[in-house]
Amino acid sequence: MKTVSIIGGSGYGGGELLRLLLSHPNVEVKQATSRSHLGEYVYQVHPNLRKKTQLKFTDVAQIEKVDVLFLAQPHGQAQHHIEEYAALSEHIIDLAADFRLRDPEFYKKWYGEDHAKPEWLKKFVYGLPELHREEITQAKYVSGVGCNATASNMVLLPLVKAGLIELDSPIYIEIKLGSSESGAEGNAGSHHAERANVIRTFSPFGHRHTAEVIQELGVTNVSLTMTAVDLVRGVLATAHAKVKDGVTMKDLWKAYRAVANENPFVRIVKEQRGIYRVPEPKILAGSNFADLGFELDESTGHIVAMCAIDNLMKGASGTAVQCMNLMMGWDETLGLEFPGLHPI
Amino acid sequence: MKTVSIIGGSGYGGGELLRLLLSHPNVEVKQATSRSHLGEYVYQVHPNLRKKTQLKFTDVAQIEKVDVLFLAQPHGQAQHHIEEYAALSEHIIDLAADFRLRDPEFYKKWYGEDHAKPEWLKKFVYGLPELHREEITQAKYVSGVGCNATASNMVLLPLVKAGLIELDSPIYIEIKLGSSESGAEGNAGSHHAERANVIRTFSPFGHRHTAEVIQELGVTNVSLTMTAVDLVRGVLATAHAKVKDGVTMKDLWKAYRAVANENPFVRIVKEQRGIYRVPEPKILAGSNFADLGFELDESTGHIVAMCAIDNLMKGASGTAVQCMNLMMGWDETLGLEFPGLHPI
Amino acid sequence: MKTVSIIGGSGYGGGELLRLLLSHPNVEVKQATSRSHLGEYVYQVHPNLRKKTQLKFTDVAQIEKVDVLFLAQPHGQAQHHIEEYAALSEHIIDLAADFRLRDPEFYKKWYGEDHAKPEWLKKFVYGLPELHREEITQAKYVSGVGCNATASNMVLLPLVKAGLIELDSPIYIEIKLGSSESGAEGNAGSHHAERANVIRTFSPFGHRHTAEVIQELGVTNVSLTMTAVDLVRGVLATAHAKVKDGVTMKDLWKAYRAVANENPFVRIVKEQRGIYRVPEPKILAGSNFADLGFELDESTGHIVAMCAIDNLMKGASGTAVQCMNLMMGWDETLGLEFPGLHPI
Amino acid sequence: MKTVSIIGGSGYGGGELLRLLLSHPNVEVKQATSRSHLGEYVYQVHPNLRKKTQLKFTDVAQIEKVDVLFLAQPHGQAQHHIEEYAALSEHIIDLAADFRLRDPEFYKKWYGEDHAKPEWLKKFVYGLPELHREEITQAKYVSGVGCNATASNMVLLPLVKAGLIELDSPIYIEIKLGSSESGAEGNAGSHHAERANVIRTFSPFGHRHTAEVIQELGVTNVSLTMTAVDLVRGVLATAHAKVKDGVTMKDLWKAYRAVANENPFVRIVKEQRGIYRVPEPKILAGSNFADLGFELDESTGHIVAMCAIDNLMKGASGTAVQCMNLMMGWDETLGLEFPGLHPI
Repeated sequence: MKTVSIIGGSGYGGGELLRLLLSHPNVEVKQATSRSHLGEYVYQVHPNLRKKTQLKFTDVAQIEKVDVLFLAQPHGQAQHHIEEYAALSEHIIDLAADFRLRDPEFYKKWYGEDHAKPEWLKKFVYGLPELHREEITQAKYVSGVGCNATASNMVLLPLVKAGLIELDSPIYIEIKLGSSESGAEGNAGSHHAERANVIRTFSPFGHRHTAEVIQELGVTNVSLTMTAVDLVRGVLATAHAKVKDGVTMKDLWKAYRAVANENPFVRIVKEQRGIYRVPEPKILAGSNFADLGFELDESTGHIVAMCAIDNLMKGASGTAVQCMNLMMGWDETLGLEFPGLHPI
Repeated sequence: MKTVSIIGGSGYGGGELLRLLLSHPNVEVKQATSRSHLGEYVYQVHPNLRKKTQLKFTDVAQIEKVDVLFLAQPHGQAQHHIEEYAALSEHIIDLAADFRLRDPEFYKKWYGEDHAKPEWLKKFVYGLPELHREEITQAKYVSGVGCNATASNMVLLPLVKAGLIELDSPIYIEIKLGSSESGAEGNAGSHHAERANVIRTFSPFGHRHTAEVIQELGVTNVSLTMTAVDLVRGVLATAHAKVKDGVTMKDLWKAYRAVANENPFVRIVKEQRGIYRVPEPKILAGSNFADLGFELDESTGHIVAMCAIDNLMKGASGTAVQCMNLMMGWDETLGLEFPGLHPI
Repeated sequence: MKTVSIIGGSGYGGGELLRLLLSHPNVEVKQATSRSHLGEYVYQVHPNLRKKTQLKFTDVAQIEKVDVLFLAQPHGQAQHHIEEYAALSEHIIDLAADFRLRDPEFYKKWYGEDHAKPEWLKKFVYGLPELHREEITQAKYVSGVGCNATASNMVLLPLVKAGLIELDSPIYIEIKLGSSESGAEGNAGSHHAERANVIRTFSPFGHRHTAEVIQELGVTNVSLTMTAVDLVRGVLATAHAKVKDGVTMKDLWKAYRAVANENPFVRIVKEQRGIYRVPEPKILAGSNFADLGFELDESTGHIVAMCAIDNLMKGASGTAVQCMNLMMGWDETLGLEFPGLHPI
Repeated sequence: MKTVSIIGGSGYGGGELLRLLLSHPNVEVKQATSRSHLGEYVYQVHPNLRKKTQLKFTDVAQIEKVDVLFLAQPHGQAQHHIEEYAALSEHIIDLAADFRLRDPEFYKKWYGEDHAKPEWLKKFVYGLPELHREEITQAKYVSGVGCNATASNMVLLPLVKAGLIELDSPIYIEIKLGSSESGAEGNAGSHHAERANVIRTFSPFGHRHTAEVIQELGVTNVSLTMTAVDLVRGVLATAHAKVKDGVTMKDLWKAYRAVANENPFVRIVKEQRGIYRVPEPKILAGSNFADLGFELDESTGHIVAMCAIDNLMKGASGTAVQCMNLMMGWDETLGLEFPGLHPI
């Protein structure tokens, strides 16, 4: 049994981490912090955990040494305290955006300010096992992943890895997403009466998660367009790109099968019949799968690729636990077996 | 390892059973039948099970002997074949309404026709562990439970068990429910464009599940009023009753605590602060909990009691697996640990 | 053409008033105030009004004399300024709860504090035309109506008016409602991620709107139980009561038809076939109808009566415009002809 | 007063037509046909029309001569009977896809079969006033418009008209849409339990409505990608294209303003603050507006253009009534003044 604690446990990412870690067979959750809910039972904030834990939120100043420390604070906080946190644990997994980018200049370009501890950026591994499994296995410090970045990286992964698409043609990634992405604090537009029934293209391009796609896949001619829809959990990325001349459906199947075979949480969804023929986020709520699909217009070379994930799981806390499993030398899927629900 | 099979695996109840049994540590799923999806992969119908099983739906004629046989057909079918099914397995758990009522006359009154095998009614135990734990432990044949009946039985259980409410005053149970209750086949009114956004009191009284409340709790002056709302999974029962003279909040707490302590899947939800102060079905999707709450108007003796469940779990397949655990002598909660999600 | 202005135009009630008044054939909207949106175009807050008006929100200090002044502020403000407002217009219609109750003691009981101008309470007529049509026609000052109170008063109106139910038996009114009831400001629980998919019985009894039912219908043994469901606009009240001995379906039909015939915005919905057999709020969005239904269990005398309304229309702004029409001597339905949408 | 009738009045398009025509000041609705609801009151199928009309559905064989005949049947029926219909009315407006395309070969390519009356294709004008206002004014026969085609034609109109985008670069139009598009009959996937919460990219390219965009705008390098989301009414088209070298925001504003000024139902939505900064279909339910927005990445020339409509209004019945107004020489906006609701 390894000990773990969470700094920032009352947000949605922290809550999902708590759900996963409290059921994980190899760890014991020692502490979880929250400023706004200090002293409250964890289940008062995350009501699904009632009768699962009697843990109360504690103050960050009271955090003790553990084997793995998870950071789940709002962006911009962890970088100021990373040295203190490193003194508390040999293994740190940060869910925020503080340590996702390697290059301080690149960080500044996308986040609009200097990084507080640029020398720490190089110490972190980008925490997407489908891209960095081996490095994560050896890592002490692993960054989180952006949920939209993950849907985007996964939607392009088989195509980029196998070199099937033209990288000088523009790649447009259309992302549709649920309301849990706006975080537990929300904003003016997240009032149910304003947010229900929406199809709201709130960010046509320039979203910060784009930086993670550029860094990780080496594509530069890429844009992410974000549209909020009426759903709580889930992201679908639909990518439009051009395949290289001569690429066939057979090539595509081969590339996708390779990725699905290497990665326990990747599935190909491409059915000719039934209701669920393409990847859909609704059936992934609570699961760590990334479902991939694709369709090719052979007359034009236009490929439409799809990736569905649960933004709080594969797009945040699920992947963080997957990283912990790798860092600890455990089975990658441990504690992440929940398959999602149907219907839902 | 015990072997299990499911007759009727393509409906919503059957799909939920498959999800639970495929993850259950003590069982191996041998077969699942479906007439309409014969020969298809289970995951083509229940897309959450992709990469979890390669099982295909088979024909009922091909079912082999197993340790536990689950029946998940539409109402009215199992009673015609019960003898054949009994030849296949020593333990049968039926999710339909065929064997819930003990008295053939009472069955006829509520279902409008004679039971096909009235002599079998007495052989079954009503499968709600919170009411019949001991009998289930000894039983060979266990019936399923109606989802609305379960919400109703559970909402009244602490009050009836402790004798706190007047049984000659009317008990009105207002039930709000999601669209998965209408089954995978649906009906004219279940088209999304007609069913979304509804508050539809489709049955003011006379619902068949009322019979299970009368039989199990011995209350007769009770009515269930059914209102469809915009949700896929979940039921909330809100009961209005009169407490006996002199009953206090202290008495109520004592009665509820007793039930919660005796039953691992019962929780009391009664908070003074936070967002989740009362039982709510949304956080129970996929979980087997029955969340109970109550409020008393001491000036009038009017009690408002609430029970939230997932209709496909505690109201159907979850309770069926809980019964299997008891029948097999296993821990009652085995394979039912998923706590539900927040947010969702 | 009569001139009208609105004090408090940026909330949901104010926005709905603006929509109705800007299309009303007999009035000209002069001004609308907002503190938080001062100087902004009305259509920036109420985006449906883009290209319908170039009006900007003004300060309350700049309001000029008009023929009819609407007050749509949060509760508790209008009573402090009623004399100033009365100097600006001969006719005042207040949508808030400030002037709904006639008796200062009764007001204090339900609102927990003394009324600021108790002598003004008697000057107002309760603004529900179905109860006070003649007085409203003569009135200078008309109060608004609570949305839940309106659903409750309308659900009981045919029964109480015709003397068909026992008033010493308890009357339980179960109210299911949408998120626009919480107002444009919202609260912690109205974040979409928390509010979506809910069935949340947030107030079992004691809701302030109960006072309006007691005052207007003279029933005392009545409780309102409030349950939030996933919908933006709409309220359904389901009332449980006992009919007097000997009351038949024929008596009920007669009572309901009388009310429907006298009131242009009352409809009876009681069909034997089709999808829409009972009153449903979803098809009433934007309309001023109150749809009534009922069902009687003749064996017990238990009546289940239903009333569906749009909380922002018949439950607030629509009724306010209906009152204006009566006060001005116009056709009661003027500017209120929109029938609602199907599907929606 | 002109007389009008509707062949095919029980579907969603027919119901919306009935709502509009029954309130239209210049027309009298004589008849509406329905095979499946023959003899039923219109309000039993379209419950919003209760107390607005006592019309019953009649048989198509009983249709009498009228001034304007609307056809609202499923695709493929009107073309077989067009000569009979033409004998009944001088003016015909067809909402189906039977007469949208001018070239019989092009029709066959997209619909997979020969047109039954190819000689009639040339007699019809494509019924989108924003493209063919003058011809419609003179026309006897006007076709309907595809809802997704309309969102696509409108999203590109300002750009194509002003020649601002490169037509040899691919134009990807991402369409998100509600469940009313699947028609009143629905399909397996439209069961609420399967259709709620979806983000389902059911057609990556090849949708038949593409043909209307190619024909009407003369663009060939265009694809429509269809994604179903959880909403009943509404479509958002998000188009990705490349502007020509040197095109600036000023050019774009000029092009959009020109279109908005010429067309009473076109609005530009492009705000810097507030919740509603971009076009959104939810606030358009029941309205005939097409809301347009755009954003330009000047570094790459990537333009993201948006168009939101109500698929049953601007995308079908609203545009049909707008055409009738033009054909009859009336104000284009007559009977189409409803602005939509907020919140909703």
